[in-house]
Amino acid sequence: MPIKIERLSLVEQVVTQMEQLIESGHWKIGDRLPAEMQLMKEFGVSRNTLREAVGGLVHAGLLETKQGSGTVVKSSSAFGVALHRQIEKSSVMETLEVRLALEREAAQLAATRRDELDIESLTKAIQLCRLASEKGDVQEFLQADILFHKAMVKASHNTMLERIYEHITEPLRSSIEEVMMAAEDFRYNGEVHHELLEAIKMQDVQAAISHVNTYINGFREKIELIQED
Amino acid sequence: MPIKIERLSLVEQVVTQMEQLIESGHWKIGDRLPAEMQLMKEFGVSRNTLREAVGGLVHAGLLETKQGSGTVVKSSSAFGVALHRQIEKSSVMETLEVRLALEREAAQLAATRRDELDIESLTKAIQLCRLASEKGDVQEFLQADILFHKAMVKASHNTMLERIYEHITEPLRSSIEEVMMAAEDFRYNGEVHHELLEAIKMQDVQAAISHVNTYINGFREKIELIQED
Repeated sequence: MPIKIERLSLVEQVVTQMEQLIESGHWKIGDRLPAEMQLMKEFGVSRNTLREAVGGLVHAGLLETKQGSGTVVKSSSAFGVALHRQIEKSSVMETLEVRLALEREAAQLAATRRDELDIESLTKAIQLCRLASEKGDVQEFLQADILFHKAMVKASHNTMLERIYEHITEPLRSSIEEVMMAAEDFRYNGEVHHELLEAIKMQDVQAAISHVNTYINGFREKIELIQED
Repeated sequence: MPIKIERLSLVEQVVTQMEQLIESGHWKIGDRLPAEMQLMKEFGVSRNTLREAVGGLVHAGLLETKQGSGTVVKSSSAFGVALHRQIEKSSVMETLEVRLALEREAAQLAATRRDELDIESLTKAIQLCRLASEKGDVQEFLQADILFHKAMVKASHNTMLERIYEHITEPLRSSIEEVMMAAEDFRYNGEVHHELLEAIKMQDVQAAISHVNTYINGFREKIELIQED
């Protein structure tokens, strides 16, 4: 029964093409989609097929239908949206523990696989952390700090690990900010970052894990203190 | 403009209700949904709204529309489907590394948080591994082995970690099977499981991590050997 397959793949084909337009950035977040008639013509499909495809992307969280103002792009990654929905059902501590799991593994892999570009990104992020810390700008510091951690995860050269890590980091940002703000002694402990970078440079896996554990335990203690308050 | 919100939430409401019917198991995998007319009546919505909702769940991978035979339930977790799609874009080694990250963290948390029920599940899984090994039944052994690992992750008492782990384990099953089949010396090394259980029982975090590392490194070596072939 070839009809079955064709009918199914038509909606899926439109969905996949639209997804690619969104994930590639051709349709950007906030962009309004062309009118229904135009899309029907472009994709060469009926109104029902188009609506089913759009419905799929609305549910996946990539598109948002607003009556009167059409359909707009809401998010650029279906996987990110699904992960965020899972995070919403979980506690901050649970999410943090998953993040730490990925971070520990990443440090280990980074120590083995890092290349020149990774070392450069990590060094630059440390400089930005130092600058922000000297200015006493917590927001800017947080930004630079996240940059450092993302660069370390990127140095693992495992794109799946990297993607999950990124999507987990964003929803945790406000919690991390809370911890930083609550810490009365906000002072950049550049030593930990620096020592971790050295371990990754020297490909010393054991030292890399040990430094990650140091800052992870420190952070966990801080967040537990806040939650007790 | 209240109309906007109502229009949006109507589709989303139907989607959420259907999702709950699926995730709770009221509509099981393979079940055919009631006819369109009946669903329109039950949910009190128009054909377009219903189709948009169904389209969303089709795209999320929970439902499958087959022309002629209606709409059937395909999967019970939207998060699982999204994760599987991400895994499809990744290599076995990448997926394995993410799994190992979660496993290491879980062992550590399990050693701190395990309760009597966890110890029971782990003990029972080891017995099943031993039985399957004595019979020389690789399939049955694999089943029992996965049971042991899932029980350990469950003992972490972090449901988010547990959910990601479960959804990653299924797609890896065939790769693990390949490794087991390729290992000419298939023999159950019950010692590693037993030592890990002891460490978790005694709440010895360091020993738990060390035992996890032992079998992780062993497995990694085996899979690398296969990939070289």
